[in-house]
Order: sequence, then structure tokens, then C-alpha cells
Amino acid sequence: MGAPLPQKNESQHTPWLYDIDPDDTNWIITSSFMIFTMQTGFGMLESGCVSIKNEVNIMMKNVVDIVLGGLTYWIFGFAFSFGRSPLSNSFISFGDFFTDPSLKDPLKGAIYAAFIFQLSFATTATTIVSGAMAERCNFKAYCIFSFFNTAIYCIPAGWMWGEQGFLKKLGAVDIAGSGAVHLIGGSSALASAVMLGPRLGRYDNGIKSLPLGNPVNAVMGLFVLWWGWLAFNSGSTYGLSGEKWHYAARAAVMTMMSSFGGGTTSLLYSLIKLNGKIDTIDIINGILGSLVGVTAGCFLYQAWEALLIGCIGALLACLFMPLFDKLGIDDPVGASAVHGVGGIWGVLAVGIFAQDPYPLRTTSGRSGLLRGGGWYLLGVQSLACVCLSAWGLVSSMILLWTINKFVTIRMEVHVELLGADLTEHFVRHGNVNVGVSRAISTLG
Amino acid sequence: MGAPLPQKNESQHTPWLYDIDPDDTNWIITSSFMIFTMQTGFGMLESGCVSIKNEVNIMMKNVVDIVLGGLTYWIFGFAFSFGRSPLSNSFISFGDFFTDPSLKDPLKGAIYAAFIFQLSFATTATTIVSGAMAERCNFKAYCIFSFFNTAIYCIPAGWMWGEQGFLKKLGAVDIAGSGAVHLIGGSSALASAVMLGPRLGRYDNGIKSLPLGNPVNAVMGLFVLWWGWLAFNSGSTYGLSGEKWHYAARAAVMTMMSSFGGGTTSLLYSLIKLNGKIDTIDIINGILGSLVGVTAGCFLYQAWEALLIGCIGALLACLFMPLFDKLGIDDPVGASAVHGVGGIWGVLAVGIFAQDPYPLRTTSGRSGLLRGGGWYLLGVQSLACVCLSAWGLVSSMILLWTINKFVTIRMEVHVELLGADLTEHFVRHGNVNVGVSRAISTLG
Amino acid sequence: MGAPLPQKNESQHTPWLYDIDPDDTNWIITSSFMIFTMQTGFGMLESGCVSIKNEVNIMMKNVVDIVLGGLTYWIFGFAFSFGRSPLSNSFISFGDFFTDPSLKDPLKGAIYAAFIFQLSFATTATTIVSGAMAERCNFKAYCIFSFFNTAIYCIPAGWMWGEQGFLKKLGAVDIAGSGAVHLIGGSSALASAVMLGPRLGRYDNGIKSLPLGNPVNAVMGLFVLWWGWLAFNSGSTYGLSGEKWHYAARAAVMTMMSSFGGGTTSLLYSLIKLNGKIDTIDIINGILGSLVGVTAGCFLYQAWEALLIGCIGALLACLFMPLFDKLGIDDPVGASAVHGVGGIWGVLAVGIFAQDPYPLRTTSGRSGLLRGGGWYLLGVQSLACVCLSAWGLVSSMILLWTINKFVTIRMEVHVELLGADLTEHFVRHGNVNVGVSRAISTLG
Repeated sequence: MGAPLPQKNESQHTPWLYDIDPDDTNWIITSSFMIFTMQTGFGMLESGCVSIKNEVNIMMKNVVDIVLGGLTYWIFGFAFSFGRSPLSNSFISFGDFFTDPSLKDPLKGAIYAAFIFQLSFATTATTIVSGAMAERCNFKAYCIFSFFNTAIYCIPAGWMWGEQGFLKKLGAVDIAGSGAVHLIGGSSALASAVMLGPRLGRYDNGIKSLPLGNPVNAVMGLFVLWWGWLAFNSGSTYGLSGEKWHYAARAAVMTMMSSFGGGTTSLLYSLIKLNGKIDTIDIINGILGSLVGVTAGCFLYQAWEALLIGCIGALLACLFMPLFDKLGIDDPVGASAVHGVGGIWGVLAVGIFAQDPYPLRTTSGRSGLLRGGGWYLLGVQSLACVCLSAWGLVSSMILLWTINKFVTIRMEVHVELLGADLTEHFVRHGNVNVGVSRAISTLG
Repeated sequence: MGAPLPQKNESQHTPWLYDIDPDDTNWIITSSFMIFTMQTGFGMLESGCVSIKNEVNIMMKNVVDIVLGGLTYWIFGFAFSFGRSPLSNSFISFGDFFTDPSLKDPLKGAIYAAFIFQLSFATTATTIVSGAMAERCNFKAYCIFSFFNTAIYCIPAGWMWGEQGFLKKLGAVDIAGSGAVHLIGGSSALASAVMLGPRLGRYDNGIKSLPLGNPVNAVMGLFVLWWGWLAFNSGSTYGLSGEKWHYAARAAVMTMMSSFGGGTTSLLYSLIKLNGKIDTIDIINGILGSLVGVTAGCFLYQAWEALLIGCIGALLACLFMPLFDKLGIDDPVGASAVHGVGGIWGVLAVGIFAQDPYPLRTTSGRSGLLRGGGWYLLGVQSLACVCLSAWGLVSSMILLWTINKFVTIRMEVHVELLGADLTEHFVRHGNVNVGVSRAISTLG
Repeated sequence: MGAPLPQKNESQHTPWLYDIDPDDTNWIITSSFMIFTMQTGFGMLESGCVSIKNEVNIMMKNVVDIVLGGLTYWIFGFAFSFGRSPLSNSFISFGDFFTDPSLKDPLKGAIYAAFIFQLSFATTATTIVSGAMAERCNFKAYCIFSFFNTAIYCIPAGWMWGEQGFLKKLGAVDIAGSGAVHLIGGSSALASAVMLGPRLGRYDNGIKSLPLGNPVNAVMGLFVLWWGWLAFNSGSTYGLSGEKWHYAARAAVMTMMSSFGGGTTSLLYSLIKLNGKIDTIDIINGILGSLVGVTAGCFLYQAWEALLIGCIGALLACLFMPLFDKLGIDDPVGASAVHGVGGIWGVLAVGIFAQDPYPLRTTSGRSGLLRGGGWYLLGVQSLACVCLSAWGLVSSMILLWTINKFVTIRMEVHVELLGADLTEHFVRHGNVNVGVSRAISTLG
């Protein structure tokens, strides 16, 4: 925070990212492995939510996210967030491109551990967008998008978490990424959904949500994400040494508490909205919205606060899904509502409820508004929301607009009608009715 | 055990639950994260076992189990098992309702870690019942059941594991919950199956098991449960410090050994019963039965004992499934046989085979009958079985009977015929033949 | 390496396998739990790749692999690799059959931890073969094969990793098993595919790969394997104490780097081969091939080397799949190409690129050819490839030839036509078109 800026040859200063106690490495590395399992969750959730005719295509896009997103994170992503060159500044870092410490570097273990941990975050952020672009984005255009999407994530991640990031210096708090991961992913999802336009025939029968292609897989995806989230939030203490383990355990409890609040709220919401019936996607996205909401301050809350934050996160997700549809923004999995709106709520909630987790310096000693910390923290968190969502929206639009000059981002009509599984991957489904007839309606 | 009862203001006494070495926290928290993945396993197993027309409904019930079961565990469950108020006694504990330690509490980390670990157990216990109630339990009634089901689990968990529990004081041993988790869950499952009655048309063609809706998902669920069980049993050393790591490793080995015995037994059973063919559900439930069987004494056995315990556990599961069907008790996933009968076997097996795991005080220095420890341990374990199964059966019946006064627990006929996926969640399956025609047979 | 051979009564010598620092046990045990999740991945991958009419059968074969393969690993597998009897020699070990240390054994914790870790490797190795035998291997013959398959794996594992193994003594390096696990599994898969012959009608329409029965499940299997692989490779530092954690973190990073290279290569390969379309199985097997490739030397490489190794591993997998088909070798999931050819590449890559991971003694201080280490290491690695593939091929053929004398290893024609799900497990699929019509074509 107020520490002197790191100099390349300054031997005594170790950036927080590499200030890893060997006792902490087990926690950091194991957490990153568990966070990677969230990719399985995103894949199953998204492929379960889309029409059957596109379920394989969206899985392949998730594979591409990891492969190309990971490759670019190595090439420039880590550098833009955490690079240690003297050119690094408050807005973007440089240095450590093609991250590859020498065996003689005493920090090599720390760099590898930090890289794998940050990589697990980065692939999560880039995968969030794939759902919003489902069923109508050209596969090759998506590959190009996936390749450069890393820059959209890693620059604001540097603002928030980098040694010199301007939001970090102002005191913004985003422990496990409600802002840097989810709000960026969600606003990028919103921009993508707008740029692509709705699926053919999407709103022929009003804004009612379309049937999920495979609801069991979608709920399975929720489950996998849920348990992975525990590692995501708990792992963000970045170790267990000293007092950290108290807060790691607290993060796990509050993550679950928030999801209980979110699950209860979305159950009630769905029961009331549908006269006693339950819409699967409301429950899934309600719980995910609550998890996004608690992420920024996962170990800064008491239990009832986490519960309340989850309730509000779920309600926001459930309300904004149909709202976006009313605006004609077709986001097949609801990523904009869950990660975008939920992300804003998560970042703001820190400014409202956060306790100072003494002796940890997470909040630089500050507290939230209701904890008697005054308006400063809430102000900084609000500023972070504005900066992150503006960046996510604008940079995604510029990227997609540019790609569209070279490869049309929207699928050709016949591909969208028949489904990308058949046209892109030679997959014939036994029952392709779901989705095809709807799309064909637009031809009439 | 023989230690003085804890007094509220007694500063020097720390309950075993919070006596956590910081070195142990990594193990406890990581184990709890892995135990939560078992929810994915239960969900896939159950949704794979039921008719396709109900596969989404049972997934949603699994979500509800976690959300409402978790919420009530926070409200009163943890309190009833481990509360530290002076009102706590041998039968029920009080205190620590709405578990939420202050940041000033020096035990806060231990309380959070203990809570997340116990929560992962509690959600497992409450989920076991959902399978037995599948395909015919009204969704709203199930939500209410799920909300209060926590009390059915947490009171006897306090008998077994609480600082003052009467079974604990008598010396009963149940390391990872063959009794407190599985026997309670299984007897509750049996009571629920009895109270609900068989599915429409279930026994029209005799007691032959019905086809699984999605056997691949069911086997996948078995796999996920299998690996989660390693953390369940191994994590129950509650740390790795001192000699604990020897026994954590032993627990993992014995868990696998038991499953090898169980798998081999159920393979042979199925091959013999079916003239050389293999029934998927026999293998799944045989292996699960063996895992339940080894759980209570997972690090108290030699390898051949664990193998034998697995063989018997599997055989019991395979034999009791058709037996319950013969009695007209329709348990769609076999939870009563696997967790109930398997749980009794697991608790008794400790009394027969247990070695004293010196220097750990797990058995208070006692050994099982065949280890020369005499009849005491077996006697106490038998008493535990009687208490736990009686409690599980009676309390579940009272709860369901009470709920039935307000919301009919049985689905309406048309819901059961068409399937709850369609009627409760608007899910249309392409091929709803499985299950509908069977149910309709009862109308003729 | 150059250390004196261990004597049974030599009290001061502890084999490396049991030389476990208590600080390392958390890492070893947790890694083994994560490695077991790879069984879920193999199951879903294989059942997703075969015809729908055999998807349950292949899942059951995966269950059998664990149950019978695990049982025999306990009976004789661990003994053949790591037994401590004086009869042990450079080619096979004896002792510690029915592994079961007494509670008085000071090494008990280490033996249990080593056993569970090695068991997780062994079950992986034996499962690799199941895919190559899919859709036409008699179930009972498969059970017998699975029972004895352990010997095929554990003897060469002893060459490579056992205290006295001749390849280990020569200085061969195979950190996480490109050779001992994957090359053995892959060459065994090749032998099995040859012995069984192609599926009925497989090549009626040329060598084009058959449609996957459930591509979403197949990709899900890839995901689960991918994250499990992190624990596989990272866990192979066998702890985190001292400098090990640097290399554990490095192994994780290089595993991901290799998969990025592999994913990019297979994407490009598929796009070029198919005029801009993507074949799911190419991507899956390309990524798996890259993971196999990096495994032997997972923490011996710089990032660009891991990337390159992944590119080559993926290309080999993609090229050898159709090559084997051209030779009439029908390997339904491509295990021979991925694990066999990929395994050879992985073992050789160490000889080319390896850095000495000082202060670890992994390479006995040697380096690869391009690191200025001369030809020695590459020579030894080449010898290892020859020995391992010869053993895998010959021993598998002898085993299958012998089994065939007692139980015909090939399914009966009607079973193969109708699918083993129906004939062996009474599973009726709604849409059995996939696969049946192809097989029937051979009757015309």
C-alpha cells in the first residue's frame, strides 16, 4: 500500500505476491488445483444451459478458454498484472513476460506458486464470458476473442492486486475477485451479448427463459462450482501461517453462509413467481449470485452479514436476468446478471459491512460504513465498480468490434439453425428438436 | 472422556472440537472441501437412479438439502451437537446458536474450522434421505422436511461426538460416522420410505429393481463419493500433527481396502444371482455399503479386517435391498440398506475388530472382542446402534407425520404419473417413456 | 542410486519410499486423493467416447479396474515394485505382500502413505487399457485381465522407481510416470487392441473416427483428468519440505504449459485437417498427449520447453490415431496413441531437455542433451523406452492369449451387435441407433 515502489534491483523488497512462507505453499498450490476444477463446473453448467444442438460446441469453447487464455496469460497476462519492470505504473505493469524464472532465481518457487494461483483465477475470469456468447458466436471468432480476452482481465486485476495498482493504492479491497474476476467477466459478458444480438427466435414467445438442454448437467455444474468456490475464497488468504488460518476458515464458513442465504432467497423468489413451482435456472443463478456477492470480502463478515449479502446477491441475479431480457439482451446463461450485477454488489458490500481483519492488513485497517469506518471505504469500492465495469464494457466492445472486421463474430444463419455441434464438430444428436424449431421460426 | 465437564467460564479447558493445532488446520479445512464434493456424488447417483421424469427434481432436492440443511445447521444444528452453554447435558447441547464467533474470540479460527468440517458432515447426513423419498415426495413438503431434518442428525451426533454426549462418555467409537451420519441417515431413509409408501406401480412386476434412468450418471456419482470418502475418513483424524498422520494415512488405505472387498463381493453376488450378468445398482450399492461399513473404525483395522468388513458391508447392502422390497418398502436408491444396515455393521465392527490406536485416545485405550478387549466395546457399540436407529426411525416418523398435517407429503397422482420434472420444474424430456408407462399401469 | 542395497535387518537404511518427513505427508496424501479423482475422468472420457450401447459397460469395467486392480496391488503389486525381502533384485522385488504394517512398526505411517500414493498410480495405469478394449471385450475375460494386469504395471514400475530397479540404477528419470504409467498402459492398450481385433464394421466406411456416444461427457472427462494431472505431477515431488515446494509449484506450471501447447497444436491440426472445423476427439487426445509428454520430467523444464513438449505430444497423438487405424488396429479411445506414443515422447524428452533440479537428486545431477549433459541421459531414457514398451506389449499379449484359453476374450457376435449394456447389464437405451446399425452392416 504505502510501501515504497519496488525497484528492479532492490534486493530487500519482495512484492507481496512472492512473499510466500514455505508453510503457506501447500495451501496456495492445493487451492489453485481445486480452483481449476471450477472449469469443469463452468463447462457442465454452460453446456447444460444451452440447446442440445450446441452443447458440445460450448464445451469446446470452454477448452479453448483454458488453452488460449492460459497461453496468453503466460505471454502477457501475468506481466500486465504483476510485472516488475521499471516501466510498470499504476495502470499497467510490464516485465516478466513469458514468465519463466531461472533455477538460480531464489524466488523461483514463489513465482511458480503465484503464477499457478493467478492462472487459476485468470482462466475463471475468461471462461465467464463464454456462456453469454453461447449458441450464436462463430467458433473461430471466439478463439481470437479468447486469445486476447486475457488482456481485458489482467489489466484491471493489476489495478486491484498489483504492487502499484491505483485501486490497491487507494485502499480498494477485493479479496477473491468479486470485482477483478466477476465484475470484469460479467461486464464483458454483457458487452458480448449486446454486440452479438439475441439468438434467432429468442424472443418470439416473450422473454420467458428457454428450456435448458440438460438441466441435470447444469445443476451438476453448480455443485462443482460451489465446492471450487470454497478454495477460491479460502485460498485467497494466500496461506495459513500466523493468523491467516483463522481467516481462511472464516472465508469458507462465510462462503457457505452466503450460499444458504442465496439458495433460500431464490427458492422463495421462484416459488412466489411461479405459484409454487421452481425454475432450475433461478436456483442455479441465485446461488451463484450469492457466491459472487460474498467473494470480495469473504473473510471480513460476520455470519449474518454473509447471509444477508447472499440473499441480496441472489435476488439481484434473479431480477436482472429477466430485466436484461426485457432490454433485448440475450445472455443464455445469465452471466451478466450473476457475475456483473453480483460483482458490483460484492465490491460494494465490502464498503458497507467489512470488519478490519486484524492483524491482517487486508483492509489497511479500515472498516465498512456500518462498522463505523465512515464513507471512505464505500467510496473507494464504488470507484472500483465504476472503473471495472467501464473497462469491462468498453474494452470488450472494442475487441469484438475489431475481431468482427476480420472474422464475422456472429454465426452464419444455417449454422445457428442447425446448431454448431453438427456444423462445427460433426456431432449428430438423436433429438435435435430442442432449439432447432425455435430458431427456424424466424424464417417463416 | 473422564475429563471434568467444561464450565462456561473455565478458561483453561478447550473442548476437543476446538483444540486444533495450527498445523492441523490445513488438513481439516482441505478435508471439508473434499467432503463437500460428495454432494455432487449424491446428486449424480440419485438422479442417475430415478426415472428420467424425476431426474431434475431429485437434483433440486439435493440443492435444497444443502441450502436449508446448512442454514438450520447454523441456526441450531451445531448448537444441539456442540453448544457450550451450561444447559448442555448428555442428551442435547445448547449454546452457540447462530454460530458466529467475534473477531476478538481467540478460538475464532478453531470454531470456524470446526464448523465448516461439521457442516460438511451434516449436509452429507441430511442428503442421504433424499434418495429414499425420490419420485413421490411433494417438493414443498420435502423443503420443510429438509429444514428440520438437521435436528434428527445433530442431536445423536452430539451423543456420539459432543463433549458431554452419553455415548461418548460410555466410550462408544464412531470415527467418521457409520453411526452418527450413515445409520441416522439410513434409518431416517427407512422411516421415510415407509411413511411415503411405494411408487405407483412399483411392484406390478414383482420386486425386481427398476431400470436406472441414467446409469452412467449413477456410476459417476459412485466415483465421486468414493474419492470424497477418502477425505471423509482420513480427515476424521482431525489433523496430522504428532502421530495423527500415521492414522490419517491408515484411514485412507483401509477405506480403499474395504471398497475392494465390497466391490469384489458385489461383483460375485451379481454374477451368481444373474447367471453371469452384472446389475449396476448392486455394484454401486455394494461398494457404498462397504465404505459405510469401514467408516466408524477406519483407522482401527488391519488391512485384511478392512477387506472383510467391506465384504460383509457389501453383502448386507445387496441382500437387504430386495428384502426391503419384499416388505413393500420402496427405497428407490437403496439408502436404507446401504446406510442403515451398513451403518449398523460399521458401528458393530468397531466392537469386534478395533485395535487401540496408541497414542491416540480414540478408543480410550479399549480394543475390540477379537483383539482381546472383551465384550465391553462391543456392548457399547451395540447400545449405540439401538439408540441411533431408534432415534432415526422415531424422530423421522414424527417429523413426517407432523409435516403431513400441513402439507401432504405424497405427490398428487398426476404429478407422480407425469413426473415432477414436468410438473414442478417445466422440464420436458425427449423420452419420457421410462417411468411414465409403469406408473400409468396402476390406473388400469 | 549409488547407495548400498538395503538389507532386511539394516536398521539405519530407510528406502526413499518411506523416507517421508511428517511435513510432507499432507502433500502426499492430499495428492493421492486428487489422483483418484482421475478415475472419474477416465470413466467419463471412455463412456463418452464409445457407442451409447456400451457406455454403461465401460463404466463398469472402470469400476472393476479399481476394485480388482486395487486388490491385486495390495496382494502382490506393491510387493513386486517395492518389496523389501532379500530376494528382491534389479528386475523384480519381493516382500510386503498383502501390505499390512503392524501398529508397532515405526514406519507404519510412511508405509500407509506410500501405499495409498502408489495405489493411486497403479489404478490409473490399469485403467488406461480399458478404453482400448472397449465395445468388444467379454466382461468376464476383462475381469480376469484386470485382476492380473497389475503385474504388467508393477514389475516395470519397480525397474524405474524401486530401490533396486535396474533402470533406476542406470539413472533413468521418470518423475510422474510417462514411462512406468503411460507407456506401460499405452503399449498394453496397443497389444490388447491387436489381440481383440477391430469392432464389427469399424472400417466399413474407412478409417474415419466413429462418432462419440456422448461428447459432452467425454470433454468432461478430459477436464477432470486435466486437474487431476496437476496433483499427479506436482505430488510426485513426494513432499514440499526443503526445496521440494519450489519444484512442486514448477511441476504444476509446466503441466499447464504443456497442455496449452498441446491444446493449441491440436486446435490448429484439426482446423487444417477439417477445413476449419474441430473434431472433439482430436482436441481431447491432443491435450491428453501433451500431458503425458510432460509427465516424466514435469519439473525439469523451462516454460518454453514444456510448451514445446506439449506441442509435440499433441501432434504425435493426433497423427498416430489415424495411423493405427490405417494398420487396422482399432483403439476406440486412442489410448495407444495418447499414452503409448505420448509416453515414449515423454521419456525421451527428459533426455533432451532436462535440467538438473539442484538440490534435488532426481536426475542424479545429470542434464539432458540440449542442456549440455551429453548423450548419457538420452541413451538411458531410450533404453527405458525399449524395455518398457517391449514388456508392455509382450506381457499383455501373453496374458490375453492365456485368458483366451479359458474365457474367449472377444464378445459373442450378438452381444457386440446389441451392445453390452443390454446383454450384460439389462440397460435399454432410448436411442440405440448409434452403433447398432454400424455393427449390423457386417452381417449383410
